[in-house]
Amino acid sequence: MSEPSEDPHGLDRSDPEGEIARRAAAYRNWGRWGEDDRLGTLNFIDERKRVAAAKLVRTGQVVSLAQSFDMNGPQKGWRRRTNPVHTMLDTGTDAERGTQGFPHGIGGADDVIAMPLQCSTQWDGLGHIFDHGNAWNGRRAGDVVTSDGDLVTGIEHAASAVVARGVLLDVGRFLQPDTGELADGYAITTADLVGAADAQGVTVERGDIVLVRTGQLARARRDGWGDYAGGAAPGLSLTTAGWIHRTEVAAIATDTWGFEVRPNEFDVPAFQPLHQVSIPNIGLTIGEMWDLEELASACAESGVYEFLLSAPPLPVTGAVGSPVNPVAIL
Amino acid sequence: MSEPSEDPHGLDRSDPEGEIARRAAAYRNWGRWGEDDRLGTLNFIDERKRVAAAKLVRTGQVVSLAQSFDMNGPQKGWRRRTNPVHTMLDTGTDAERGTQGFPHGIGGADDVIAMPLQCSTQWDGLGHIFDHGNAWNGRRAGDVVTSDGDLVTGIEHAASAVVARGVLLDVGRFLQPDTGELADGYAITTADLVGAADAQGVTVERGDIVLVRTGQLARARRDGWGDYAGGAAPGLSLTTAGWIHRTEVAAIATDTWGFEVRPNEFDVPAFQPLHQVSIPNIGLTIGEMWDLEELASACAESGVYEFLLSAPPLPVTGAVGSPVNPVAIL
Amino acid sequence: MSEPSEDPHGLDRSDPEGEIARRAAAYRNWGRWGEDDRLGTLNFIDERKRVAAAKLVRTGQVVSLAQSFDMNGPQKGWRRRTNPVHTMLDTGTDAERGTQGFPHGIGGADDVIAMPLQCSTQWDGLGHIFDHGNAWNGRRAGDVVTSDGDLVTGIEHAASAVVARGVLLDVGRFLQPDTGELADGYAITTADLVGAADAQGVTVERGDIVLVRTGQLARARRDGWGDYAGGAAPGLSLTTAGWIHRTEVAAIATDTWGFEVRPNEFDVPAFQPLHQVSIPNIGLTIGEMWDLEELASACAESGVYEFLLSAPPLPVTGAVGSPVNPVAIL
Amino acid sequence: MSEPSEDPHGLDRSDPEGEIARRAAAYRNWGRWGEDDRLGTLNFIDERKRVAAAKLVRTGQVVSLAQSFDMNGPQKGWRRRTNPVHTMLDTGTDAERGTQGFPHGIGGADDVIAMPLQCSTQWDGLGHIFDHGNAWNGRRAGDVVTSDGDLVTGIEHAASAVVARGVLLDVGRFLQPDTGELADGYAITTADLVGAADAQGVTVERGDIVLVRTGQLARARRDGWGDYAGGAAPGLSLTTAGWIHRTEVAAIATDTWGFEVRPNEFDVPAFQPLHQVSIPNIGLTIGEMWDLEELASACAESGVYEFLLSAPPLPVTGAVGSPVNPVAIL
Repeated sequence: MSEPSEDPHGLDRSDPEGEIARRAAAYRNWGRWGEDDRLGTLNFIDERKRVAAAKLVRTGQVVSLAQSFDMNGPQKGWRRRTNPVHTMLDTGTDAERGTQGFPHGIGGADDVIAMPLQCSTQWDGLGHIFDHGNAWNGRRAGDVVTSDGDLVTGIEHAASAVVARGVLLDVGRFLQPDTGELADGYAITTADLVGAADAQGVTVERGDIVLVRTGQLARARRDGWGDYAGGAAPGLSLTTAGWIHRTEVAAIATDTWGFEVRPNEFDVPAFQPLHQVSIPNIGLTIGEMWDLEELASACAESGVYEFLLSAPPLPVTGAVGSPVNPVAIL
Repeated sequence: MSEPSEDPHGLDRSDPEGEIARRAAAYRNWGRWGEDDRLGTLNFIDERKRVAAAKLVRTGQVVSLAQSFDMNGPQKGWRRRTNPVHTMLDTGTDAERGTQGFPHGIGGADDVIAMPLQCSTQWDGLGHIFDHGNAWNGRRAGDVVTSDGDLVTGIEHAASAVVARGVLLDVGRFLQPDTGELADGYAITTADLVGAADAQGVTVERGDIVLVRTGQLARARRDGWGDYAGGAAPGLSLTTAGWIHRTEVAAIATDTWGFEVRPNEFDVPAFQPLHQVSIPNIGLTIGEMWDLEELASACAESGVYEFLLSAPPLPVTGAVGSPVNPVAIL
Repeated sequence: MSEPSEDPHGLDRSDPEGEIARRAAAYRNWGRWGEDDRLGTLNFIDERKRVAAAKLVRTGQVVSLAQSFDMNGPQKGWRRRTNPVHTMLDTGTDAERGTQGFPHGIGGADDVIAMPLQCSTQWDGLGHIFDHGNAWNGRRAGDVVTSDGDLVTGIEHAASAVVARGVLLDVGRFLQPDTGELADGYAITTADLVGAADAQGVTVERGDIVLVRTGQLARARRDGWGDYAGGAAPGLSLTTAGWIHRTEVAAIATDTWGFEVRPNEFDVPAFQPLHQVSIPNIGLTIGEMWDLEELASACAESGVYEFLLSAPPLPVTGAVGSPVNPVAIL
Repeated sequence: MSEPSEDPHGLDRSDPEGEIARRAAAYRNWGRWGEDDRLGTLNFIDERKRVAAAKLVRTGQVVSLAQSFDMNGPQKGWRRRTNPVHTMLDTGTDAERGTQGFPHGIGGADDVIAMPLQCSTQWDGLGHIFDHGNAWNGRRAGDVVTSDGDLVTGIEHAASAVVARGVLLDVGRFLQPDTGELADGYAITTADLVGAADAQGVTVERGDIVLVRTGQLARARRDGWGDYAGGAAPGLSLTTAGWIHRTEVAAIATDTWGFEVRPNEFDVPAFQPLHQVSIPNIGLTIGEMWDLEELASACAESGVYEFLLSAPPLPVTGAVGSPVNPVAIL
């Protein structure tokens, strides 16, 4: 089998299964970190990498890359994904009125949340996507993720892994200097990624966490969510799988719902083909719905597109994803 | 009013209200950062602080300070605080069996969580505790936290604040070199905190996030949770409020359920008096149920008790607390 | 104060507060069943009533009046009201694959639900609505419903109360014989209610549970939910409060989101004025989002509009409402 | 294969799989109501049955058979079954303080619940238990219950089915006239069921919903929950499967967590063998954790053990169980 094309025009738009299979075969990392591996490409981050990343801290500014977690989020119920429902167990109103039964004037407020782990700014864990019933590292999906959760590659295993150099690729500003926003349906190519990096004067390296800004979130903020959750969006082309594999990046996150371009690049029914290549085959941890707006402005101003990124998932045992408040430390 | 005593023996054990009021008056920071402040002592962290903290990174080792988020946690239902309930919306078993209806062999797993925001490793936000109907900065509790959540000081405001120098004070090992564990009911004094810092060769400074290890979590891991959630525990004495105020630390976290010593230091009904002084009056952000075990071992081995700490809360709009996966970057 | 008008044209559309106050004063039942009352007009149901209602059972047909409880419901997030989220703790897929760890070939499925108690077919309890800070029977709202729920009139007190004669008033068919559907915004008057009863040959009596069909649910089923949850709808006019009080009905339910006509009958901001009169003042239990379609067809066919109705709420301690599957036993 | 024994002493206590298989084969109702059946033994209830049951209403007294739904329930977290968590979206305290932003003095309270559908008084649906990967009517478990719920026999299909004659068999009082309580571990036999019915002067008939009182709930109320959820309990012997099949009852409910005797009647690991026979093979709908105390007193006083029973499940789409407030109408 020849190396898959990295030109979207080279895709056979009638054959998602074949195009996926070709890339899965070419880029599969199964066994690369041993039979018991639970981290996939996060293994590319080593301690030396982090020491170097910490040296990037120059101003001490911290930029949160999280969207708000509340009912004003983009979810509309697809596959039972709702926005977070946050309710109070105790309130200040009750405390002030003196109904809480505590001594010496103390009062308290507590709260509860119910939410899909994939509802807002998040990491997709390695148990999130399967390829023909196979999970990351070649395990059978049903041996990995049952109703009891991800018994093997649960996101808790990455609890101390996700601190590294972050690199922002502001493809939105690179391709659309006027608006900074890619059109919905635009498929970001390997050439775009490399071009943006070059233009920004940054080199993507092994173990980096790459943040790809499309500008779609800025548009959604301005125009309303619309179909942000699942509808048309700019995003990575399936043909970038080779670049993802070759660069040995640790993780990639975008400011869109679904990481890859939507509608997907086929003329027949298709659904998130780049996920199918990346998560179970490459072992890639994927971030979605990150808010890269303030970071992009800061990078544009400073001309520096690399920083220390701290984005550890919440260690929910057996989770296939995690809400996260990633911080870029500039 | 004379300066409150920092000797636990100086407490009038029959008068919690008076002892609290004395410290609230002496240490109150209301107005210190303006009328609109939403951060309290987190304001002590400045960007220079963070640049210095980043320079502490020497090995690149990351230690997660979070407990697991699952049904095996310590909660027993008190005030409707349960352990997290994590359920699956889709599983690998379904994907492998081919029941999901997706094209070209892709399968997926999604999940949902329902949990109190204070159920496991967490930050208490500024809206978590009130003193006689007053919230942080002198606002009325009912103006701040209603059934709609914390409308003023919600934890989302701290989303990019909580990155600073972390300092571990391993009081457990300092006072109990053999076991490393303080007894339940032991009230940690100012002298203990200062003594531990001295012994460790570290100085607590303005803007630090101080982690106080009691060893209780190690005991609970060994012996079972028992009454970890709300029962007897080692913790800070009410009399440390002066030290907290004077050192201008940004935040304090412990490895216990409740931060302060339990039973509380009174012979009459009392409940979390140091919270009542610290949160609404000093404006302190408090961490609870942090797992300091691996960090304490690493610090004991290296002899270095300072590090870069990244512990941003999940920006749940209006939350009075947040689950967190704090990471120490050594 | 003169008796309030029962003609919608007699309303002062600029003065909701006055129009509400007038009716609250005229129809208030506070103290009617003693200081400790927790049931309001449900007290009108007595055991003799039920014996008589049971005699109405002639065919043995049971008609469920509940909508489905699932993600396809009408809620859109207003005031954090979502549709029910139903997730599995164990599945047949897991059982069939043999991953559950049970002996001798047994397998199981369990499930969890998270839902607002007011999300679908429901009863509004007596703690659901307040009038100027007053709850049912003249209690202060903050003495009744805190963050701990309804401490006084929680819906659990009605657990064995809600079985009585049911009477369907099919106002939709009565006023619109062709379509059976009232227009959104149509305010049902006392004359309409009396006219429908007369036309149907039924008399509304003390202790009845009256089901008012508008036909809006049929329309929503056909045309999509649109703004069913909170938008324009046919419903009872504020001016029917006198009829509600005078007839001494035990409860009223409709096939709409909000029981009363929307937009409400005022030219200035107003919100559910009939609720404000009916729940805290009259002590009325109100049903919403009931599915009266099959029942209406059965009644139209038989010409009989009375039946045994069993609609006990789920006794959630302290709840201000309850999901319910009401059954008409014909 | 000979008819299975109805004497517990006839069980081979070393062979649960064989004893279950024997009864599954002997009592299997697959196909009895057609290939598409979704109701199992609820089909035994016909409309004539209900007309007759309605005639049993003599006093009009209604007895709720539901336990409370709150945090004080018996669940301890086994298989993530928790007690219900009920939280408020709006409160009377807020309304009274005027923080809700509604016009003309109206205020409101709303609430939310998160709960396992099997946490308190409930029906087990037909998708709740499987036998060697088979669900009711011989379907494969994975074709019936996936992460999307019970796609075939979801409890919503029984929404209008569960109204019939109820018969109380107070085995507790029959066997233990002094205490009215069977010991934990006591296996109720066919002879006990028949004996209780005879002593009470009632005959169990086709289509009845039979309520078997053991007295364990009374004991738990007096002595604390202990291991009510899953521990030792009185309950039906596996050997009653023949009686269940032969009598053609529509459903059976008990006042215990698990319907059948616990520990189960084997010397080797076993788990709920009567469920394995009854639900997937006989097609029986099973009620658990019903509160039969008040009903038992009323029946003892009147000497009448039959009544109209209305216990429709909440139609949660795809649910394998349902909370329920069953009412006996005497």
